[in-house]
Amino acid sequence: MTATPRRGFASDNAATVHPRVLEAIAAANVGHAFGYGHDPYTQEVERRLATALGDPEASVFFVFNGSGANVLSLRAALHPWEAAIVSATAHLHTDEVGAPEAVAGAKLLIAETVEGRVTLDGLRRLVERPNDEHAVKPALLSLTQATEWGTLYSLPELHALAELAHAHRLRVHVDGARFANAAAALGVSLAELAAAARVDLLSFGGTKNGLMVGEAVVVFDRALVPGLLHLRKQTLQLASKMRYLAAQFDALLTDDLWLRNAAHANAMARRLHDAVAGIDGVRVTRPPAANAVFAVLDRTARERLQREFDFYEWDDVSGEVRWMCSWDTTEGDIDAFAAAIRAAVAAA
Amino acid sequence: MTATPRRGFASDNAATVHPRVLEAIAAANVGHAFGYGHDPYTQEVERRLATALGDPEASVFFVFNGSGANVLSLRAALHPWEAAIVSATAHLHTDEVGAPEAVAGAKLLIAETVEGRVTLDGLRRLVERPNDEHAVKPALLSLTQATEWGTLYSLPELHALAELAHAHRLRVHVDGARFANAAAALGVSLAELAAAARVDLLSFGGTKNGLMVGEAVVVFDRALVPGLLHLRKQTLQLASKMRYLAAQFDALLTDDLWLRNAAHANAMARRLHDAVAGIDGVRVTRPPAANAVFAVLDRTARERLQREFDFYEWDDVSGEVRWMCSWDTTEGDIDAFAAAIRAAVAAA
Amino acid sequence: MTATPRRGFASDNAATVHPRVLEAIAAANVGHAFGYGHDPYTQEVERRLATALGDPEASVFFVFNGSGANVLSLRAALHPWEAAIVSATAHLHTDEVGAPEAVAGAKLLIAETVEGRVTLDGLRRLVERPNDEHAVKPALLSLTQATEWGTLYSLPELHALAELAHAHRLRVHVDGARFANAAAALGVSLAELAAAARVDLLSFGGTKNGLMVGEAVVVFDRALVPGLLHLRKQTLQLASKMRYLAAQFDALLTDDLWLRNAAHANAMARRLHDAVAGIDGVRVTRPPAANAVFAVLDRTARERLQREFDFYEWDDVSGEVRWMCSWDTTEGDIDAFAAAIRAAVAAA
Amino acid sequence: MTATPRRGFASDNAATVHPRVLEAIAAANVGHAFGYGHDPYTQEVERRLATALGDPEASVFFVFNGSGANVLSLRAALHPWEAAIVSATAHLHTDEVGAPEAVAGAKLLIAETVEGRVTLDGLRRLVERPNDEHAVKPALLSLTQATEWGTLYSLPELHALAELAHAHRLRVHVDGARFANAAAALGVSLAELAAAARVDLLSFGGTKNGLMVGEAVVVFDRALVPGLLHLRKQTLQLASKMRYLAAQFDALLTDDLWLRNAAHANAMARRLHDAVAGIDGVRVTRPPAANAVFAVLDRTARERLQREFDFYEWDDVSGEVRWMCSWDTTEGDIDAFAAAIRAAVAAA
Repeated sequence: MTATPRRGFASDNAATVHPRVLEAIAAANVGHAFGYGHDPYTQEVERRLATALGDPEASVFFVFNGSGANVLSLRAALHPWEAAIVSATAHLHTDEVGAPEAVAGAKLLIAETVEGRVTLDGLRRLVERPNDEHAVKPALLSLTQATEWGTLYSLPELHALAELAHAHRLRVHVDGARFANAAAALGVSLAELAAAARVDLLSFGGTKNGLMVGEAVVVFDRALVPGLLHLRKQTLQLASKMRYLAAQFDALLTDDLWLRNAAHANAMARRLHDAVAGIDGVRVTRPPAANAVFAVLDRTARERLQREFDFYEWDDVSGEVRWMCSWDTTEGDIDAFAAAIRAAVAAA
Repeated sequence: MTATPRRGFASDNAATVHPRVLEAIAAANVGHAFGYGHDPYTQEVERRLATALGDPEASVFFVFNGSGANVLSLRAALHPWEAAIVSATAHLHTDEVGAPEAVAGAKLLIAETVEGRVTLDGLRRLVERPNDEHAVKPALLSLTQATEWGTLYSLPELHALAELAHAHRLRVHVDGARFANAAAALGVSLAELAAAARVDLLSFGGTKNGLMVGEAVVVFDRALVPGLLHLRKQTLQLASKMRYLAAQFDALLTDDLWLRNAAHANAMARRLHDAVAGIDGVRVTRPPAANAVFAVLDRTARERLQREFDFYEWDDVSGEVRWMCSWDTTEGDIDAFAAAIRAAVAAA
Repeated sequence: MTATPRRGFASDNAATVHPRVLEAIAAANVGHAFGYGHDPYTQEVERRLATALGDPEASVFFVFNGSGANVLSLRAALHPWEAAIVSATAHLHTDEVGAPEAVAGAKLLIAETVEGRVTLDGLRRLVERPNDEHAVKPALLSLTQATEWGTLYSLPELHALAELAHAHRLRVHVDGARFANAAAALGVSLAELAAAARVDLLSFGGTKNGLMVGEAVVVFDRALVPGLLHLRKQTLQLASKMRYLAAQFDALLTDDLWLRNAAHANAMARRLHDAVAGIDGVRVTRPPAANAVFAVLDRTARERLQREFDFYEWDDVSGEVRWMCSWDTTEGDIDAFAAAIRAAVAAA
Repeated sequence: MTATPRRGFASDNAATVHPRVLEAIAAANVGHAFGYGHDPYTQEVERRLATALGDPEASVFFVFNGSGANVLSLRAALHPWEAAIVSATAHLHTDEVGAPEAVAGAKLLIAETVEGRVTLDGLRRLVERPNDEHAVKPALLSLTQATEWGTLYSLPELHALAELAHAHRLRVHVDGARFANAAAALGVSLAELAAAARVDLLSFGGTKNGLMVGEAVVVFDRALVPGLLHLRKQTLQLASKMRYLAAQFDALLTDDLWLRNAAHANAMARRLHDAVAGIDGVRVTRPPAANAVFAVLDRTARERLQREFDFYEWDDVSGEVRWMCSWDTTEGDIDAFAAAIRAAVAAA
């Protein structure tokens, strides 16, 4: 690529692929295999993932990316006149360029949101609203865990939201692009986290946790399974050489690589927070719960810093920035970045 | 995967990934890179591909799979009231589970088709039909090269079809899942083949020619470019860790790997044809133009053969089967398969 | 409108509104009524129509037009990965400008068609085809009765097609824009015709049979009813001042106006056929089964005739024309038109 | 209908059809006319409406209902990756059961809304937001005039919003289901009101102002016209017997019937306001600008009142109700209703 590989905090998808993942791909690169997931290896890995999530009979559908996983979930769960309730900061709402509407034909209802989390009262107001033929009918609650704002729902919060949703006959979807980071941060297994959310469909993330390309839609509610093979293909998410997606998840599930990667990224965010929390001119806007640090610093400092390190301005009004750590962020990266931040605000 | 890796002729997507492709992926696996294609390496590979296709200024959009490439092309080229003309055997029509209709909202008009090819008369009848507000308006001609039936359009055929299409203000799309095989078989460069078809949009295949995952939509018509970045994302075809798609194409374009892979697959199909053409009980239905052999043999022989080798029954009425060769098909594979065919029909 | 109102044979929708229909509208024009069909009068007329169709418990949804009725039926009956089987001449396929694809997202599978009718063998080939995730799954058979080519399915034909469809778990939809003409021609009640087709959903026509604006979707299969109120609204087919649609159907169902209008239109087509069948230079292409006459005459005669009378050229290749009779076609209209035809072909 | 026709304040679509409208329909009910708007009478009325709106060259498309008009406007104005900015109370957002999303595939961006009106600051925040491929691009501002909350944008407000929208290359749509009420209340002509909003597309309402069925999409921006005939048909909004829609608008435009109807409805709302404003236990929540009165009264009074008169609870949390007056509301209706309100709150 370049002579001096750049380091940055733009996103966990700016990171590299974990070597174990590349090794698993190479190991799968032998012989001919039926495409589209109809090979025994893929089916075995699907079973491993379902088991890790606490329900060996759950159906697993590997897909290409997070938008694909989320939109496939909406298409599977919603009739045309039904809507999904999401947070104001949900990726589905803000970062999928209208794919839920354009591809799934689904309306999103925005619930009251605090620090990236749907509130119980916000959900209650939407599900208790009388419904008639002029208004879409809420049928799905989609929660992001960990949230786009780097926060987490606690297990009791998830439980309460899911219970309320189910009581009103909504299904529960979790956008788990960073599900592993959440489980690692909460100190629970993937299965425990899925169970806490009474999840009916899960977008389980891989790409942001050390894979090259690949996410999975895991369907716990059997009623949603018929048609899903067709629907994945129609949603343009069916890989022909599927074994290479499966291999990546195989690596992720081996020796708890998912947990090691996620816990490391979380730890690096904590280290970054601790290193910058005391710097004059840097205001960390909330304690990092997973692998992101959000902070406000002034424009001059920000721009100076961006000459050396990639990261995103998260809010163009408040000037809040996001610093995202990943499985391959090193302690050295953090220390160099913290030093650069210190220098940038001092110079500003 | 398994102790004795299975060999087969089911599809060129049952093949492995070329080692050079894995090497390029490993080489790209260094440092942090902005996601979504906004890194210099991806942009450089996009330029390489455009140049190889004869138009360095063409816009290149890497996507995940062939259905994604095709549906993105339809979405880019068609207004809601417009239609694409395709062959009766087009992948878009028969093998994408209604994604053109469900995701692109596009109606397909089926042209007269001979041996997988749209005929000039068939196209003429559709484009010369009077149009009023009750009927969709044809605005795109989509040709598959090489076709799903293993046949090829000659350069003059492409030229004539494209001229007629353009004369009626239709754009030309080529579904080039096996574009490399076609160029290799016709003995022309990628640029010459694209030029012959006066192509406005091309789905350029990678997966069937030795990549792991990745296709490209190449847009030659500048008028279609605005909005395409948004549209690729909305069509669920935007990879976050894009450099790993780019790396695969980088390998494919280096040392003419695309040509070597494709020419080899074509040669293996020719070898298979020559080996089985004289066998009593095997009727090859057309000379192999690219990397597929189609043949009719009786059900008993077919079923016996499928116990050892994977392949598809192509037509459940006629009993025609498809034997597809790929970059990694060996001469030994062919010889073993031909012997098995001989034995199967003898026993039947 | 104009000094000398023009007469013509362009379509049964070029006709006027029956005076009884206008009277019913005027009678309903009293007092305030809840909109959207939530008034007792509309509900009573819905019940009348369901009863006339043989199932008083069937659900009736008044809509604006035939395309609306058909597309609503598709949306009600199909999952995204499912398809409807239609004839090659179906209005859904040829005359709704891709609304089934663009609005319902549905792929249409074209069955072998003879004289406007789906053949049993054609249907069998489509429903017996193996299905996998790459191909849409047929889930609805849509038959037009009377057909767009002025022909009819006999009751045994309907029965056989419906049995085959149901045996393969497809539902049956009838596009009955001219359902009344068909019942009148076959000498059966609306209920008998619906029963013969084992119809699950019916687009029941009004506009072409003397109404001003209004069709009805009648849903016999209870499983399809939930969500349909929402779906009608979302499909843009919910009239706010619904009582005025209901009033029109009230008139149509009173004193068998539907039958008198339809039988009259059919009789006029028969009269026209008899008057022109013997004319040299006019070739009637099939005996008129309902209210249309199709004929071939040469271009000069055609153009001369169109200066006086409106009608459509049906096939721009063969020069076949369609002459459509309606509830308000008079014997004098027929006699004048037949004389003009005679003169036109004589002069040509 | 019923022995004692009920009176109510549920909606202006609970009203009857104006006798002049029925007369115009009867007058058009002569002779045969080409369907789908291809008759001279329809074309003449289209011209009349365009002229009344200040641009004789504007294109007019009669449609069936308000949802149809609005969704057709979205489909005409938006590419798939673009969005419409609407108020939080817009009919498009709250009362069209997700048709914008499901049928137009469009995402709606909700602007800050005060008393039913988009604020200039709210619009500014949405149009000045940086855009990348992950977010939909705002391309249309849709304003409702008069608003769903019975309020009005002043001419300078419209001007300022439209200028800001156009400066950011957004088009301006007005949902004018009650455009006539707005013009009447503001004391301006339809043309002046359209000009003030620099409107590019207008949903011009008829049904709520004395018609039976019928709205119009009026397209001022020539660039949006190509394809619109096809798009209206595809959006299921093409009437076959179009002359009967045209006739209703003909009546509405004759002798300023639109103005007389609208001004009367507005005056009745004012009269109702004045009659109830002083009643203890009734809190009018805002002065009536057009033909609606909103008020809060307690549940017991509300329920007692609804036994005699139809009206809607507008907000199930606050208990706010909406009382809507129409062209056929009489002074007697108001006086009786006011008396009933007085009695209901006294008894409560």
